[in-house]
Amino acid sequence: MCSEKFMPKRPLILITNDDSIAAKGIASLVEAMKPLGDILVVAPDKPQSGMGHAITIHSPLRLYASNQFSGIDSYTCSGTPVDCVKLAIYEILKRRPDLLVSGINHGTNASTNVLYSGTMSAAVEGAIESIPSIGFSLQSHDADADFDASVHFATKIARSVLKNKLQAGVCLNVNIPKGKISDLAGMKICRQGRAFWEDSFDKRKDPSGADYYWLTGKFETSDKGEDTDMWALENNYVSVVPTQFDMTAHHLISQLNEWEF
Amino acid sequence: MCSEKFMPKRPLILITNDDSIAAKGIASLVEAMKPLGDILVVAPDKPQSGMGHAITIHSPLRLYASNQFSGIDSYTCSGTPVDCVKLAIYEILKRRPDLLVSGINHGTNASTNVLYSGTMSAAVEGAIESIPSIGFSLQSHDADADFDASVHFATKIARSVLKNKLQAGVCLNVNIPKGKISDLAGMKICRQGRAFWEDSFDKRKDPSGADYYWLTGKFETSDKGEDTDMWALENNYVSVVPTQFDMTAHHLISQLNEWEF
Repeated sequence: MCSEKFMPKRPLILITNDDSIAAKGIASLVEAMKPLGDILVVAPDKPQSGMGHAITIHSPLRLYASNQFSGIDSYTCSGTPVDCVKLAIYEILKRRPDLLVSGINHGTNASTNVLYSGTMSAAVEGAIESIPSIGFSLQSHDADADFDASVHFATKIARSVLKNKLQAGVCLNVNIPKGKISDLAGMKICRQGRAFWEDSFDKRKDPSGADYYWLTGKFETSDKGEDTDMWALENNYVSVVPTQFDMTAHHLISQLNEWEF
Repeated sequence: MCSEKFMPKRPLILITNDDSIAAKGIASLVEAMKPLGDILVVAPDKPQSGMGHAITIHSPLRLYASNQFSGIDSYTCSGTPVDCVKLAIYEILKRRPDLLVSGINHGTNASTNVLYSGTMSAAVEGAIESIPSIGFSLQSHDADADFDASVHFATKIARSVLKNKLQAGVCLNVNIPKGKISDLAGMKICRQGRAFWEDSFDKRKDPSGADYYWLTGKFETSDKGEDTDMWALENNYVSVVPTQFDMTAHHLISQLNEWEF
């Protein structure tokens, strides 16, 4: 008989997202993590796409137990993805998680979308907290997208992160092309592609005649590198970008020291 | 007589912040920029601290002309600081601004606060748009803080950025210690210090007995480097961190290529 103290402890895995606890993507991520450890889910109670690294400081937060996933401890939070991570770590959990995974997002978070993405900001928050963290995103906005290939790669990559350990301060930004596993070309370690949103505002009038605006846009790039996450996705590879929260442009420090202020 | 076509064009300066158009900090920044060019202000209609790089995609935006600053074109926006930048560039302005300045924030945005800060995210958005951009923050949360030294340094640094040009993709994160100009030790080009929020939640009961949470915390660091923005502020220097939106941990790409996935 194996007494409890000789049983290896299963990894503790914290799961969150930005599409809300009701999204198919987070249910897929729960499935992907089940073979790897014990799971806690803390996810937004409503869609929080585009919330970036926002935290809630001007209003209080609500946190409710949820029965969204059978047999899995789950909570919904009224705040942002980063709020979910903070509540999980500092209010709910008794010990630090061994892994934080966020997603699987409905829609890619390649290139500069890493900055706008609530999914990736949750992973970056994990990195700030020195927790090995990964954000997963699928190149499809469909509510009912096929996450089979994403689940396959999420399990594979999470297992590897648990085994290899990530350098503190770094998380992974993983984007998965649409399609079946057999359609995909494999995985590629990439850099964040350089691009921006050529925004346009859809200006409308409300019933009382006042203007309002919807943010829309087209993603534009002149970055033709074959080492970017954008290139990988276009060529059917799963892209993996090591992503850090140190935003210093270190290469410019000496140049700025030459400036006359 | 000097005909208009021979008059040098004055720089066009876009001003935003996250404390709202009513904050003393943005009024101070308008004063600081007046000697340098023509100004457009587009700022949130309410406090947006801690909004990070959030954008508004689940609800429409409102934009109203404001008469907050005499003789200065000004608008309020119902969204985040990054929304303000996008509306200014793609909806209001006829030409690209020569400079974007954000702040002056009531409270520092040194170290990892760059990620949570709406003030700095507006500047980072400017960098994504290839506009020379600077975020300014004062080490005081007082609504009625003394911004005299901040105005002095904001004018000086903005003038230098207009003259020297910043490398595309990089903005400046400028933090100014509390105190009079004569109290300050000067300026220091720094790296982003490494630190995190040791969060704690103030759990309360609402009048009907249900729990709610206020996010609070203590800023913790073990980074003792004398080249950080935190060190600079502690030692009474204005800190200037060149800040980029490429979050790739380039040094880890080759290491990850060795992993077995």
